[in-house]
Amino acid sequence: MDAIDRQGLRTDPRPAQLGVDDLPVLARGCAVMGAGGGGDPLIGVLMAREAILESGPVRLVDLDDLPDDGLVMPCGLVGAPTVAIEKLERGTEGVRLAEEVRTLTGREVVAIMPFEIGGSNGLIPLTWAARLGLPYVDADGMGRAFPTMPQMTMNIAGVSSDPCIIADERLNTLVIRAASVGWTERLLRSAAAAFGGAAVAAIFLMDVATARRATVRDSVSRALRLGAAITRAESDPVGAIVAELDATVLTTGKVVEVTRETSGGFVRGSAVIEEAGTGALLRLEIQNENLAAVRDGEVRASVPDIITVLDSATGEVVVTERLRYGRRVSVIAFACDPIWRTQAGLQVAGPAAFGYDFPFAPVAPHRPGAVTEVRR
Amino acid sequence: MDAIDRQGLRTDPRPAQLGVDDLPVLARGCAVMGAGGGGDPLIGVLMAREAILESGPVRLVDLDDLPDDGLVMPCGLVGAPTVAIEKLERGTEGVRLAEEVRTLTGREVVAIMPFEIGGSNGLIPLTWAARLGLPYVDADGMGRAFPTMPQMTMNIAGVSSDPCIIADERLNTLVIRAASVGWTERLLRSAAAAFGGAAVAAIFLMDVATARRATVRDSVSRALRLGAAITRAESDPVGAIVAELDATVLTTGKVVEVTRETSGGFVRGSAVIEEAGTGALLRLEIQNENLAAVRDGEVRASVPDIITVLDSATGEVVVTERLRYGRRVSVIAFACDPIWRTQAGLQVAGPAAFGYDFPFAPVAPHRPGAVTEVRR
Repeated sequence: MDAIDRQGLRTDPRPAQLGVDDLPVLARGCAVMGAGGGGDPLIGVLMAREAILESGPVRLVDLDDLPDDGLVMPCGLVGAPTVAIEKLERGTEGVRLAEEVRTLTGREVVAIMPFEIGGSNGLIPLTWAARLGLPYVDADGMGRAFPTMPQMTMNIAGVSSDPCIIADERLNTLVIRAASVGWTERLLRSAAAAFGGAAVAAIFLMDVATARRATVRDSVSRALRLGAAITRAESDPVGAIVAELDATVLTTGKVVEVTRETSGGFVRGSAVIEEAGTGALLRLEIQNENLAAVRDGEVRASVPDIITVLDSATGEVVVTERLRYGRRVSVIAFACDPIWRTQAGLQVAGPAAFGYDFPFAPVAPHRPGAVTEVRR
Repeated sequence: MDAIDRQGLRTDPRPAQLGVDDLPVLARGCAVMGAGGGGDPLIGVLMAREAILESGPVRLVDLDDLPDDGLVMPCGLVGAPTVAIEKLERGTEGVRLAEEVRTLTGREVVAIMPFEIGGSNGLIPLTWAARLGLPYVDADGMGRAFPTMPQMTMNIAGVSSDPCIIADERLNTLVIRAASVGWTERLLRSAAAAFGGAAVAAIFLMDVATARRATVRDSVSRALRLGAAITRAESDPVGAIVAELDATVLTTGKVVEVTRETSGGFVRGSAVIEEAGTGALLRLEIQNENLAAVRDGEVRASVPDIITVLDSATGEVVVTERLRYGRRVSVIAFACDPIWRTQAGLQVAGPAAFGYDFPFAPVAPHRPGAVTEVRR
């Protein structure tokens, strides 16, 4: 008997632990939820695989099963995904982050949480959980991937971004104690650029009791279920993804234009897809993630909803840094976690937060009564 | 009876304390020793004046008079002087730095030391000493001003640049724990740029026993004596400065060209001075400080020696960010502290360290037997 959760996914029981065999499945789910961003999940699979082979499987835990006053460390990769696919991590950066957290707070971290579930960032912190021998929290701060730090549910819930810790593969470490989350973001971005375009970070340190009301819960098991559904679909992977997510297909066609620039710790640009048959053009606007899809001058989908590009034949997610001319793709859009459709959510992650002047129009109504209640 | 120190300055006794009346005198000396950099001393005078009026005069102490295990905080302004003259400090940034040092090390700072004596940086830390009620150390890390952090005697002496703390007037704070002084510099510079082009920093924290062998001693009292000599000179201030420092006059004429760009936390550029009478052109190369003076294709003076531009009429120092077309100036050069003429000194602050391919040619022989003995 399958229960149905708020995003229309089967709520299979949460697995007790994550081993190497779960990684490709988790990666498929994280990729789709990443809106084209969060980094190529393959990198996350490779990193987590090595760590789990060395240190053993990682326990996946619900926040309800951790002590109220335990310290949770949300973390992940920051910077431009175009850089992350070339500038590989050492694999122990998260250990450095946790050490610095201990030095700064005098407290031990009890569990590692991905700050964003989308893309490689749903998997990379698993690497660190394995190496630290800590459980992985079945939650994240986005339910997708977004390009900036203020775009996390912990920010909406009023969790302080001070301290934010950044490290790189040389184990250079930087602690930011900023007057606001906006300044944290600015300094973090600049540091990521100085580190060569990408780095790892821990931010919004909080105790378990706070995390329970300040995060998107169950996002790791949701990505696993989504990944499993894709894995099961033998003939029509794109159809399976669309069915699982109740997604809208915006277009199916060929990439005919890609503009991309990596600067200031971001990759920004756009891509144009020419629809097979009609020749209609769909333009994707990109800032690390796919931000908006415009067809014939009309916005068909936008942040905070999730726009993901899939390879038409294999259903494989095409992350923004892998978009290139001639690729046959299907562009789908589906509902974000309901928190992002609230006024507070739209304020930090709606179209206006990215400089657009159009209002947000949801791609599909979310089910009322299932809203993530992030509370200050 | 006047003793003579190694730079040919009268070694009048060190004053016991620094009050508001000492500030203009100190500023004159710091300006000349700044090689055109270190920031406009006027800013330092204004800041230190306000702090001393509020909190009283500051004790000026020799390192021999402080406890061996006391913690010394070298500090100052970092970033582009062009920015510093417009982006004013709050005046309490140094208090924030000392607080963060306490948090990080668990130790109290016993004395404040300017990390560079040149320009406003010879005076700004005095502001913080006043506000913290701490003595000011009669020493610095350069004996002049240089554009980067590795160019400090503490680096040559092997003092660690970890941690380095940066703050701005919003009291945003950043702690850098880098794998090397090169990475500290890179991350610091990037942070200064993110802060808007300028910030304040503490670096090379050390105990008093280490500071005694790792700094340029007596540099505050040397700047005071130089400033006093200039103040006493009624008719020919340029002549007085030249006489005091045993300096070489490279040219006297009119500024006919200034090129300047502020980016990445530096101001870089050049200026051309046309000599009165002969019309000969002298070109100054600038990176925050005056780096080299070239006349008829021949290098007449360069780092690490000190090149300073003076207003021909008033003897007032023209810092690099105040150079402009038509100004009548005299360009002088004089010997740096002997530590910079050693192999280790030239390696971090000689012409090659700035990308030049010419060898260092000292402007005037320094007196042997008076070398600052910085020891690892």
